[in-house]
Amino acid sequence: MPIIECIPNVSEGRRPEIVEAIAEAIRAIPGVRLLDHSSDASHNRSVFTLAGDAAAVKAAVVAMYEQAVASFDLRQHSGEHPRLGAIDVVPFVPIEGVTMGDCVALAKDVAQEVAARYGVPVYLYEEASKNPLRKNLEDIRRGEFEGLATKMASEGWAPDFGPSAPHPSAGASVIGARMPLIAYNINLATDRLDVAKKIAAAIRHSGGGFRFVKAAGFELKDRGVVQVSMNLTNYEKTPIFRVFEAVKREAERYGVQVLESEIVGLVPAAALNAVAEYYLQVAGFSAEQILENKLK
Amino acid sequence: MPIIECIPNVSEGRRPEIVEAIAEAIRAIPGVRLLDHSSDASHNRSVFTLAGDAAAVKAAVVAMYEQAVASFDLRQHSGEHPRLGAIDVVPFVPIEGVTMGDCVALAKDVAQEVAARYGVPVYLYEEASKNPLRKNLEDIRRGEFEGLATKMASEGWAPDFGPSAPHPSAGASVIGARMPLIAYNINLATDRLDVAKKIAAAIRHSGGGFRFVKAAGFELKDRGVVQVSMNLTNYEKTPIFRVFEAVKREAERYGVQVLESEIVGLVPAAALNAVAEYYLQVAGFSAEQILENKLK
Repeated sequence: MPIIECIPNVSEGRRPEIVEAIAEAIRAIPGVRLLDHSSDASHNRSVFTLAGDAAAVKAAVVAMYEQAVASFDLRQHSGEHPRLGAIDVVPFVPIEGVTMGDCVALAKDVAQEVAARYGVPVYLYEEASKNPLRKNLEDIRRGEFEGLATKMASEGWAPDFGPSAPHPSAGASVIGARMPLIAYNINLATDRLDVAKKIAAAIRHSGGGFRFVKAAGFELKDRGVVQVSMNLTNYEKTPIFRVFEAVKREAERYGVQVLESEIVGLVPAAALNAVAEYYLQVAGFSAEQILENKLK
Repeated sequence: MPIIECIPNVSEGRRPEIVEAIAEAIRAIPGVRLLDHSSDASHNRSVFTLAGDAAAVKAAVVAMYEQAVASFDLRQHSGEHPRLGAIDVVPFVPIEGVTMGDCVALAKDVAQEVAARYGVPVYLYEEASKNPLRKNLEDIRRGEFEGLATKMASEGWAPDFGPSAPHPSAGASVIGARMPLIAYNINLATDRLDVAKKIAAAIRHSGGGFRFVKAAGFELKDRGVVQVSMNLTNYEKTPIFRVFEAVKREAERYGVQVLESEIVGLVPAAALNAVAEYYLQVAGFSAEQILENKLK
């Protein structure tokens, strides 16, 4: 059975009963698993993680709009996190038995449906967007809900679906498709923060490094070591092992060793299998050979 | 749901209708998956691979005895492969949510049941056997069906369950528990067979090497290279990465490089994950962090 992960971010993190009603609406959809949801009061925002096939995930997202459009009012909303609308961001992520193309198609299908049904304008983003100026979430969200009417009226900011002005209370949504993120940190056996910062600058995309790496250098003061903290945004094209080897090599140049690395949160099995294949120099391996995959 | 793999080897590989009847008997058991079965006419033997929880796998094995005791006669059986009985060997392998202890308990439970129900004597082997002289399958099977009556009458060879003499037509069975086997080969960028043989001798248990490695050196004539061919019989205690690194280091000593390695057939996910953890120096990783495991 194909599995798509979906991680809707909604602009409500202070009223637990409203958040719980949305969770219930998701759980009521057959074929959908609500894996996690968490709320942040200072951000005034909640993040849901759900999974299922395309039809089930679509039904769950539509059910979320049904709740949110009725009970959120962005004109009354404040919080630390930038946001454009009630259902602020909806990424679809291919996990198993689906392609990125499937997730792009689903993003467009859901965008069209919610625009038509609720009158909410939708911007496509990341892989679902063909416009290079409208791929990056931060670019689309700049100006936030308060600046949205002006932005939508300006050149190049007509939405991909729905009306050409914001929904009065629900603003606009950003819907798209992306690869799973991997939060990956490498701790260095030194307290020299400058080394972590230089390595982060060398390997991240913005500094001329790998295409799908975001990185920053931090001090772990309580442990007396420093960390290169990363987000890997496409583990197929910029795999973990290549990033690890690059960090190790850069650290050597400063006379520093890698102490350890850590994977924060979830990681797709394929990303770890690629590491094993690389270091063992495995030829001709297929995921079909993993015993557990035969038992599904 | 807990998963135990079971790989019964039966002494019939020439009558497809009999083999198919056994396969059907397995498929008829609720909760059991028949993953594979294959027959070898020259060995006159068939191997079934099935999976399920303890109760389901037990029911399937009992159903196999029901068929085999009725339709096999070892007095008429010939083939290249050594064998002691109709249902010759039954290993139980812990895959997910079960311990080796669970598989040992299941082996004893099944052994008792088939001994009582069909009058077939059973020897426990590998992890299910406490007798160091009766852990190894080859030791138990030496003498084969034809020598079984004499062997059973001799000192130290009373069976663990069932009558003290062979079943007239079904002989005896060997039932036990073991870790999954990994068939793992490392190809060297040389045509020097002596190097592959020396490395195999250095790393295998019988030569003073790793406890859970069987190894031999071969020539791959068509490719002009040599291979260290291995069976890893306990990937938790003798992990793949340690064996790979040892072979690589030994090869260096002869001025030879590792060309590639290959995993033949199935490998448990945990064995590959351990490789990724080792090379990336990952601290504090848990299988719970693998996205696919959250989706089960």
